[in-house]
Amino acid sequence: MPAPTGADGARLPLREDLRGLEPYGAPQLDVPVVLNVNENPYPPSPAVVEEIAAAVRTAAGGLNRYPDREFEALRADLAAYLLAESGVALDVRQVWAANGSNEVMLHLLQAFGGPGRTAVSFAPTYSMYPEYARDTATAWVVGRRAEDFSLDPDHAAAVIAEHQPSVVLLASPNNPTGTALPRATVEVVLEAADAVPGGCVVVVDEAYGEFRRAGTPAALELLAEHPNLAVSRTMSKAFGMAGARIGYLAAAPALVDALRVVRLPYHLSAVTQAVARAALAHAGELMAQVAGLREERDATVAWLRAQGWRVADSDANFVLFGRFDDRHAVWQGLLDRGVLIREVGPPGWLRVSIGTPEEMAAFREALLAVTR
Amino acid sequence: MPAPTGADGARLPLREDLRGLEPYGAPQLDVPVVLNVNENPYPPSPAVVEEIAAAVRTAAGGLNRYPDREFEALRADLAAYLLAESGVALDVRQVWAANGSNEVMLHLLQAFGGPGRTAVSFAPTYSMYPEYARDTATAWVVGRRAEDFSLDPDHAAAVIAEHQPSVVLLASPNNPTGTALPRATVEVVLEAADAVPGGCVVVVDEAYGEFRRAGTPAALELLAEHPNLAVSRTMSKAFGMAGARIGYLAAAPALVDALRVVRLPYHLSAVTQAVARAALAHAGELMAQVAGLREERDATVAWLRAQGWRVADSDANFVLFGRFDDRHAVWQGLLDRGVLIREVGPPGWLRVSIGTPEEMAAFREALLAVTR
Repeated sequence: MPAPTGADGARLPLREDLRGLEPYGAPQLDVPVVLNVNENPYPPSPAVVEEIAAAVRTAAGGLNRYPDREFEALRADLAAYLLAESGVALDVRQVWAANGSNEVMLHLLQAFGGPGRTAVSFAPTYSMYPEYARDTATAWVVGRRAEDFSLDPDHAAAVIAEHQPSVVLLASPNNPTGTALPRATVEVVLEAADAVPGGCVVVVDEAYGEFRRAGTPAALELLAEHPNLAVSRTMSKAFGMAGARIGYLAAAPALVDALRVVRLPYHLSAVTQAVARAALAHAGELMAQVAGLREERDATVAWLRAQGWRVADSDANFVLFGRFDDRHAVWQGLLDRGVLIREVGPPGWLRVSIGTPEEMAAFREALLAVTR
Repeated sequence: MPAPTGADGARLPLREDLRGLEPYGAPQLDVPVVLNVNENPYPPSPAVVEEIAAAVRTAAGGLNRYPDREFEALRADLAAYLLAESGVALDVRQVWAANGSNEVMLHLLQAFGGPGRTAVSFAPTYSMYPEYARDTATAWVVGRRAEDFSLDPDHAAAVIAEHQPSVVLLASPNNPTGTALPRATVEVVLEAADAVPGGCVVVVDEAYGEFRRAGTPAALELLAEHPNLAVSRTMSKAFGMAGARIGYLAAAPALVDALRVVRLPYHLSAVTQAVARAALAHAGELMAQVAGLREERDATVAWLRAQGWRVADSDANFVLFGRFDDRHAVWQGLLDRGVLIREVGPPGWLRVSIGTPEEMAAFREALLAVTR
């Protein structure tokens, strides 16, 4: 097949599976109420901003030098945070980080996926997963979640047995549905993965883990028994540090060592390391509103149900609700009223991120205006 | 083949081409004179450090939000810098950036390489190039440079005609040899690339471009005529911002659009964007020592030749010299005297980065002590 000809006459050898694609990402629009990308609505306090600026000032004095390639101080701080958050003790060699959990996932697929291999997930789920597979030439197989967005363990085990993947990606809480996985389901998936002859890494993506409801387990607790388990986290959500791009992962040392081989050298800048460490030193302040966001989430679920909408149970900082005959019209109607939510998920559903009480009031008012 | 079993008993499905590999990177040792990774020896001034800290303080107030995914303000600043540096006017849509030119190169190989495709370069050259190919499952073919490290245009054209690559990587000035390519050689390569039926992107890696000697051309000047040309640059070297991890690229808009599809969303943090823009606003101060580093480089070449060593002509901020029957012994002898250089390049050669006058004096003294 001849290469496509660009508007400027170039024949560029763009990969066939990329032709005609648009870059991933929700619209970045300047509107009063932004509830579309699951950000934490609370900016860091002036005190934390000063700490971050001070940490960067110190780092900036040595910016002519390359950063610490192993970022062990940051990894130790992340391990200490995870111990405090979930009670699971981790060694520095069990922690990894990158520029957003996007890049953590890319490292995982680069090490354990690739040509001739398969990655499996269960839809509806995070729409970047197939892009990680595509970008690493990993075959992509998608099973299904149940009508209520839960994952049937028997179905999951059957898909794994049939396709013999080298990587399974499970989001818990799941995006865009908010659904957390029971421990028993993760254990069944791990058992099915253990039966794959070539070996299989199970990635539990806990990007929204800190928002889980009381009693919902963290997959971190399974690490000690499962050396093929990787649990990814991020500072973008509960920490309110989406702009700093810091994702991380906990796993057995041998699994982390594989990621060290595929990472680009010096992938985490000295500035990113300094910002992350400053934020971790103030985790309590940065996460002070997590409890409030959980309450606001539960109230949003209850209010939407009271209006008669179907609403998925949520352990995250967003809520999936529906179903609408013309969800795009509802999305546009909200946007016309200054409220940006996300047109994502199965047909007929919409997703709203949990903002401040004022933002959620604006959302409720706009939704009533659009739908009544 | 069964999967390897880790020390902790896990069967991990590590890709076969990664098994037994060590992570890339020079040793990060704490010694008095560090001349091994081509860093700029001059840290940013206190005034520039304050500007960077102030820019980050401003950005930090909004870190709960995702960064500008298109970073157009940074791209405009980079275009303005390239205009000032090389006289070539570029549109914002012709500029791209990532976390180090490493990631720029990964984006290029992800878009234009991949399974079933071939990338070509000419050795000795930058040792990360085959890793970019490996990480994107792109076949890797390496031609040769001449005895004096120049590139024979006929050989280059013949390798391209034989292997029909989709990507050609040319470093100019070349690492680790310091060799810049004449414009005529780049033009022959571009002509050979234009003859590849599927299309072929030619990447000229000018990471060390600002150190080129008077009269050495920049490939940027060829962009207007060649929509399949990409010229990569970095702020790590002349700018003295290695710790900030900012690489960038100039090319036709259609080529940049292809990179927008494969980049991970929000790959450049708000902090990185702020630091880069602050540094670009002070490009003059940050690069004040480039002329001095060039002089120090030329003096180092002359001194090494006066001692009887073979020395490659250098347009970069490092010098390749030799040949030593036991280069590792010389490297170790220098390290024992507190001077860290790099054991890299063809057998028998060593590479020294250009430091301050005091650091180069320490290097000369140590080299004499080790070899005389």
